[in-house]
Amino acid sequence: MSDLKDYIRSIPDFPKKGILFRDVTSILQTAEGLRLSIDELVKRLENVEFDVIAGAESRGFLFGMPVAYLLNKPFVPIRKQGKLPCETLSKSYDLEYGTAVIEVHKDAITPGMKVILFDDLIATGGTIKAAAELVEELGGEVVECLFLMELVDLGGREVLKDYRVESVVQFEGE
Amino acid sequence: MSDLKDYIRSIPDFPKKGILFRDVTSILQTAEGLRLSIDELVKRLENVEFDVIAGAESRGFLFGMPVAYLLNKPFVPIRKQGKLPCETLSKSYDLEYGTAVIEVHKDAITPGMKVILFDDLIATGGTIKAAAELVEELGGEVVECLFLMELVDLGGREVLKDYRVESVVQFEGE
Repeated sequence: MSDLKDYIRSIPDFPKKGILFRDVTSILQTAEGLRLSIDELVKRLENVEFDVIAGAESRGFLFGMPVAYLLNKPFVPIRKQGKLPCETLSKSYDLEYGTAVIEVHKDAITPGMKVILFDDLIATGGTIKAAAELVEELGGEVVECLFLMELVDLGGREVLKDYRVESVVQFEGE
Repeated sequence: MSDLKDYIRSIPDFPKKGILFRDVTSILQTAEGLRLSIDELVKRLENVEFDVIAGAESRGFLFGMPVAYLLNKPFVPIRKQGKLPCETLSKSYDLEYGTAVIEVHKDAITPGMKVILFDDLIATGGTIKAAAELVEELGGEVVECLFLMELVDLGGREVLKDYRVESVVQFEGE
C-alpha cells in the first residue's frame, strides 16, 4: 500500500457512540506503514525553515520524534498537567465536556525560536491552539501546525486560521 | 558533550519530596542530545534479532519510535487504560500507592513474535514486568527489555530477572 489512508483503521463508536475513531496505531503495525507516515511528514517540512518541533502528548510524541531526529532538530514535549518536572507555563482549553490543561517547560522555548507544532490529528483544533498560545507567550514563533490526519468537517483550520496548517491525510464528509 | 548522562537534568523533590527526578526532556532540548540518545539505543539493538518494538506510554513513545523507524520495524504502543480503540488485553500492577493499568491491542502481538520492550526509565520495573506479561499472554516472546536510563538502586533488574535487560545510562548510589 502506498497511500497512508489505507493503513488507518476506523473504529465506530469510540470513545463513545456516534464517533468514528481514526486509529493511528494501525499505521505502526507494519514497518511499511510506520516508515511511510514519517517520510510523508518529513517531506512536508523539507523546505520549511524552523528550529524545533513541539509535539503534543502522547500520540504527537509517536510521530513527532522520528521527524525531529531525521531533520536534526530538537523536540519539545507539550505535556498534560503535572508531568513536566521544571518550571512550566500552562494553558487550559475547552473540551466537549469540561476542560483540559497542557504545559510546556518555560526554558524549552526561547524568544525568536521558530516552532513547528505537531499532533497526530486535527479535529476541533483546541489542543494545538492552546499550544500555539504557550509558544507565543514564551516569545516563540509558530511557523506551521502539522498533522498526520485532518478531520476536515470539525473545523480545526478555522480555529487555527492565524497559522499555516498542513496535514498528510484528510477525512471529509464521512 | 558525548556522554548522554551530561544531557540529563536532575530535579530534586519531583514529583514529591525525597525523589531526585531524572528529566529526559532535557536530552531532547538540543539536536545533539536527541540524536545521541537515539543512536545509543539503536546500537544496543543492531545485533539483536527481533520483530517489533513495544513502547510504554508516554515517554517510551518518544525514544522508541525513532528506533523502530531506523531499524525498519513496527511499533506497538502500550497505553494507559481506555486509550486504545480496538480489543485490548489489560494488566494492572502495583505503584507505591495504588495500582495502574496498561493495555495493548490484542492483534498487535501475534504468536511467536520477537518483542523488544522499551521504556525511557527502569526504576522498580513494575510497568515493563506487566508489559512482558501482556506480550507473553498473547504468545509473543520478550527478547529484551531496553531502557535509556536505569536507577540501579531501585532493583528493577531483579523484578525482570527472567529477561535480558539493557540500559544506556545508569544512575547508582546517588
